[in-house]
Amino acid sequence: MLTELFDNVREKCPLIHNITNYVTANDCANMLLACGGSPIMADDIGEAEEITAVCGGLNINIGTLNQRTISSMFAAGKRANELGHPVVLDPVGVGASTLRTETALRLLEEVKFAAIRGNISEIKTLVSGNGTTKGVDADVSDKVTAEHLDEAVAFAKGFARSTKTVIAITGAIDIMADGERAFCVHNGRPEMSTVTGTGCQLSALTAAFITANPNKPLEAVTAAVCAMGLCGEIAYQRMTEADGNASYRNYIIDAMYRLSPAELEKGARFEVW
Amino acid sequence: MLTELFDNVREKCPLIHNITNYVTANDCANMLLACGGSPIMADDIGEAEEITAVCGGLNINIGTLNQRTISSMFAAGKRANELGHPVVLDPVGVGASTLRTETALRLLEEVKFAAIRGNISEIKTLVSGNGTTKGVDADVSDKVTAEHLDEAVAFAKGFARSTKTVIAITGAIDIMADGERAFCVHNGRPEMSTVTGTGCQLSALTAAFITANPNKPLEAVTAAVCAMGLCGEIAYQRMTEADGNASYRNYIIDAMYRLSPAELEKGARFEVW
Amino acid sequence: MLTELFDNVREKCPLIHNITNYVTANDCANMLLACGGSPIMADDIGEAEEITAVCGGLNINIGTLNQRTISSMFAAGKRANELGHPVVLDPVGVGASTLRTETALRLLEEVKFAAIRGNISEIKTLVSGNGTTKGVDADVSDKVTAEHLDEAVAFAKGFARSTKTVIAITGAIDIMADGERAFCVHNGRPEMSTVTGTGCQLSALTAAFITANPNKPLEAVTAAVCAMGLCGEIAYQRMTEADGNASYRNYIIDAMYRLSPAELEKGARFEVW
Repeated sequence: MLTELFDNVREKCPLIHNITNYVTANDCANMLLACGGSPIMADDIGEAEEITAVCGGLNINIGTLNQRTISSMFAAGKRANELGHPVVLDPVGVGASTLRTETALRLLEEVKFAAIRGNISEIKTLVSGNGTTKGVDADVSDKVTAEHLDEAVAFAKGFARSTKTVIAITGAIDIMADGERAFCVHNGRPEMSTVTGTGCQLSALTAAFITANPNKPLEAVTAAVCAMGLCGEIAYQRMTEADGNASYRNYIIDAMYRLSPAELEKGARFEVW
Repeated sequence: MLTELFDNVREKCPLIHNITNYVTANDCANMLLACGGSPIMADDIGEAEEITAVCGGLNINIGTLNQRTISSMFAAGKRANELGHPVVLDPVGVGASTLRTETALRLLEEVKFAAIRGNISEIKTLVSGNGTTKGVDADVSDKVTAEHLDEAVAFAKGFARSTKTVIAITGAIDIMADGERAFCVHNGRPEMSTVTGTGCQLSALTAAFITANPNKPLEAVTAAVCAMGLCGEIAYQRMTEADGNASYRNYIIDAMYRLSPAELEKGARFEVW
Repeated sequence: MLTELFDNVREKCPLIHNITNYVTANDCANMLLACGGSPIMADDIGEAEEITAVCGGLNINIGTLNQRTISSMFAAGKRANELGHPVVLDPVGVGASTLRTETALRLLEEVKFAAIRGNISEIKTLVSGNGTTKGVDADVSDKVTAEHLDEAVAFAKGFARSTKTVIAITGAIDIMADGERAFCVHNGRPEMSTVTGTGCQLSALTAAFITANPNKPLEAVTAAVCAMGLCGEIAYQRMTEADGNASYRNYIIDAMYRLSPAELEKGARFEVW
């Protein structure tokens, strides 16, 4: 399954419009290039709709959001919906401020998302309208573990059903769900959280995979999550005793650049849930 | 010729004011430091003119432009003109939105540029007022190849003549032209396009070379283009089987840091056209 | 002394709110993660106070300041003061424009800083209200050398006394002072100035150390400065003949990731002055 999904990314070279934070924009651009896609970042209301129209998909990331870029998120999101382009939401740090929470909830109301990717704290905040999010990392009390995976999958499916969206909750175990089905992914390394923006990169990657595979959104998101986690594993094996999170950051993107669809198929560790 | 031009950069350490996109600003800053220049990024109208005045040259890059920074581009550009500082334009993604096209065309009317550097799609858009630009990469149908190089050089010369500017069209073969003369550069690697911002870095580098060599703008631009391409080649030789576009990005900047003027002279592959 | 100070950072994992420039935001985030802290970047007035409230400390950096983010600096700074959170100021490029100078001086009036970190040109500008700052690097005529160290320390102490703040003047020799005491640090490499944002990273690191050691601000700042300089030394030893400032940038952050409190204690070279 994954071979074909990744082949489609490499062959179609999807152009992704990113309205994203300035902290990790460079990494998102290089990750998109590494997977075979093409990035464009544009966040001004004066061009957001037009840029979205020339792209295949849209990635909205609310890190470092501001009044100017929030308008662009709505305008581009609605335009993408009109054009039938898939839209991905990364609700970075939702729950940490009223602005982030209100913006994310309003985006959910006014824009139809093909996928939403966040950590468990962020997704819980989207469901409840308020959360325990502290900063941009998942709250410890929220962590998804093997023992209450059933509960977490049911939660993801429920939210996916009510929003008619694919939900990706990423963490030690990643859960992808639409309203009916779910996959759990076991790829990845805990050290990935020591690199800023691996979540942002994954959301950009998700946009590329969904755009190249519009009729299989759940499978496409699962493939993106497996690919990112597998690259985290491959990159980790390359680490020397002197390497830390800065080199790891480069190695993860390098791994995506080198990853073949067949290697993804072989290295992916996921299960239907 | 190139030895002296690069020596001047290393000796004069030109301070370059960059009004540039947030995606590649860090790479532009490190590239300027690597070549021997010094960067300052400042894009607010409240300081744009003053910052330009303390610098030697100005680099305007319209990626992630917005209403706030557009005002600063005009203010800084005009102030730099008054002071006789060279100004470089990188019309990133012009043609992809009306905002980018109108901003770039208005900049051409109101600011005198020492050099304009873009891919062939971007430069064509500047000439025609509209274009086939999709995103930030050159359209495939536009690619400059050896067989219609004469035509492309004539096009570059014509635009250079009408704008009284040095035009640099970068791609598989790079063309630099003023109204009278032209150089073609054969340095570089196709893999450079898998790293986000190599074009932006080249524009910043171009600003440093022109600022350090104010009386030889065509030669200065040619030297910058040769240097960037050569660093792409040197960096490529360093790539291991595990390295991808993220490591390549670092190696290109590293190569500039290590490049000597004599090595540039020796490795440059260009011809008068 | 340094072991305990660094242990506290690693154990408490301080969450730092950064209102900082877009050029080096990614490096600041990765440096904070490398030292054991956690970063969040947020610069909109609509969330600045709330984000500061969920964090432990605040880092204000005026590089690429603009009218929108300046408001957020004041709002977040005042809120952090109310909550008793330490606030660090990095007056990047102060003196290069009236906007930077006036903003920094007004911040000094309206916000209580736990520490201010800059190069000698920047700190002189804060004291005198105008300066010789050209761009973001220290003016050559300002450089602190061994022969007039006494004078520079007295200057730092005087400014620290009048502002009731810890002053860190970083350069070839680093000076940290509160009103009564001072430390001089001899760690670091001159090549660190060829990497954009090592100063910004140090300010973010300083915020993490002060936040984790609220009762020992002078010692905490000294520990951060020693750690940064030591990482510059460790990273330098790793450089190959092909490596330049881009790889050096990664190696410095890597070194922080790997640095143990015991290694910091052993490698730090500082003296009470």
